[in-house]
Amino acid sequence: MNLAVGVDIGGTKIAAGLVASSGVLLATAARPTPAVRGRDAILDTVTALVRELLTTRPGDGDVVAVGVGSAGVVDPRRGVVLSATRALAGWAGTDLRGELSRRLGLRVAVDNDVHAHALGEQWRGAAAGRRDVLLVTVGTGVGASIVLDGRIRHGAHSVAGHAGHMTVAAAAGRPCPCGGRGHVEAVASGPALLGEYSRRTGTDSPDLTEVARLAADGDPVAGAVLAEGGAALGSMIGGLVNVIDPEIVVIGGGVAGCGEPWWRAVRETIGAEVLPALRDIPVEPAALGGSAALLGAARMAFAAARDREPSATS
Amino acid sequence: MNLAVGVDIGGTKIAAGLVASSGVLLATAARPTPAVRGRDAILDTVTALVRELLTTRPGDGDVVAVGVGSAGVVDPRRGVVLSATRALAGWAGTDLRGELSRRLGLRVAVDNDVHAHALGEQWRGAAAGRRDVLLVTVGTGVGASIVLDGRIRHGAHSVAGHAGHMTVAAAAGRPCPCGGRGHVEAVASGPALLGEYSRRTGTDSPDLTEVARLAADGDPVAGAVLAEGGAALGSMIGGLVNVIDPEIVVIGGGVAGCGEPWWRAVRETIGAEVLPALRDIPVEPAALGGSAALLGAARMAFAAARDREPSATS
Repeated sequence: MNLAVGVDIGGTKIAAGLVASSGVLLATAARPTPAVRGRDAILDTVTALVRELLTTRPGDGDVVAVGVGSAGVVDPRRGVVLSATRALAGWAGTDLRGELSRRLGLRVAVDNDVHAHALGEQWRGAAAGRRDVLLVTVGTGVGASIVLDGRIRHGAHSVAGHAGHMTVAAAAGRPCPCGGRGHVEAVASGPALLGEYSRRTGTDSPDLTEVARLAADGDPVAGAVLAEGGAALGSMIGGLVNVIDPEIVVIGGGVAGCGEPWWRAVRETIGAEVLPALRDIPVEPAALGGSAALLGAARMAFAAARDREPSATS
Repeated sequence: MNLAVGVDIGGTKIAAGLVASSGVLLATAARPTPAVRGRDAILDTVTALVRELLTTRPGDGDVVAVGVGSAGVVDPRRGVVLSATRALAGWAGTDLRGELSRRLGLRVAVDNDVHAHALGEQWRGAAAGRRDVLLVTVGTGVGASIVLDGRIRHGAHSVAGHAGHMTVAAAAGRPCPCGGRGHVEAVASGPALLGEYSRRTGTDSPDLTEVARLAADGDPVAGAVLAEGGAALGSMIGGLVNVIDPEIVVIGGGVAGCGEPWWRAVRETIGAEVLPALRDIPVEPAALGGSAALLGAARMAFAAARDREPSATS
């Protein structure tokens, strides 16, 4: 049985999973990201997690490769981290593929975590069976990944998918964490929604789950905040759908768990913004939760194993 | 010598050109579009133009196919016009490939005119030698075409590239000809620029060439109107560049002839909106003018001839 290990390196947590070539997740393990301790500490944690999972493999299991989805901008051709948030100290410049394959003695494929997420949803999640997918993630920030004809669009500089800093009319004048103004992330991210709720109620913001619960219970302020954030996101997605023309839109990330008041606004705005020919485009929640990036990373690993040894694949 | 005829069907004019496989435009002809007389009149005009060009071919010239870029949404796989502006009466639903190949007895390839424009610029124009191109056209409307890895992105419903109705912060609240609000076309198109100049000066709007001349001469209102329209377009393009990550941006259409005040605003805004890794992306004016779509359509024709008879290509 061919197996792969998929790894998801985030700012707060590193998760790994042992995945069968059928897409079944056989075992998982996770640890906090030693972000402040720097590059080697992160690489050591990934190595330890992969080794831990290797011990759980069935007797007939053969691990053909390791796939890694990492926060930051990753060059998948060279296997190098090009840039990263300040939360991951010293991560930019890491030869992720080289360091891990040396430590593990296994073939390693690497990519950005949002791309891994998209590949996972396209393999076994909400976009299974689709060739052209727009995945949008909304959490601390807003990101995206485009799958075209079954392949991730990486772009000429490996930064494709950075949708968070598209301007939208609903964000006119609003400052974005990036230093710009008018970007969708400034009004649609989780922190933006919480900040807006606090402003309107004069209270310290509870967490987003609480705002979502209040909205579900009919609280008008919570409902309006979620609907306005959802509409801003929907207008960005609708504009992008007109340009890219995918088969399906999949939305994931913590904010996508905010329930019907948010989803209704997202779907209605997308429907209002797209061309008539695109009115019926499916807009679906991501189906795999935290497993999506693990599965997508494992899929990258299987693909890398096939590409390099086409005749050795069973 | 292998030749192709490229045809560009617009709302006001139909142009055709005889093109060598080297990309040299050997002869051209153009007539007004008989738009109100309907489908057959348009097809007859195209047929007459192609026949006229066939008479001009050199003695050793062999016309291998005809390529057509048409206004409207075109399904290039089936060769059918899916929808069109009201300016082209009865054009939607036309089996463009079937009708023209029957009339002409030649192989015919069809696509949308903006895609033909992009292919022309990528073949012999501002994007020659590039594989990943974002072409934006700004005239009566705002459109786009994306070339990815040397191929036009048509999308799952053949409507990819409709960038005019992306929302931008600078257009917040502004009504768009499509019925929506906040779209880039509402503030960046030629009519939008003229309308804004008229509003600010209280005069009947001159044509755009006159506004551009005034801006070049230092007229502050004309300069501000062009700069604001250019900035709105630039913010849309910058957002799209972050998502698509092309090698180059090419901008064409009548508004792109508005001179430095407009171009400076477009380039500065793109530079401000894109990720650091994309700061140096080339942003170039389309180089082929009205010939771009003819050359792109001819290129489609050569490709269609190759695809169908791979061993017969000389």
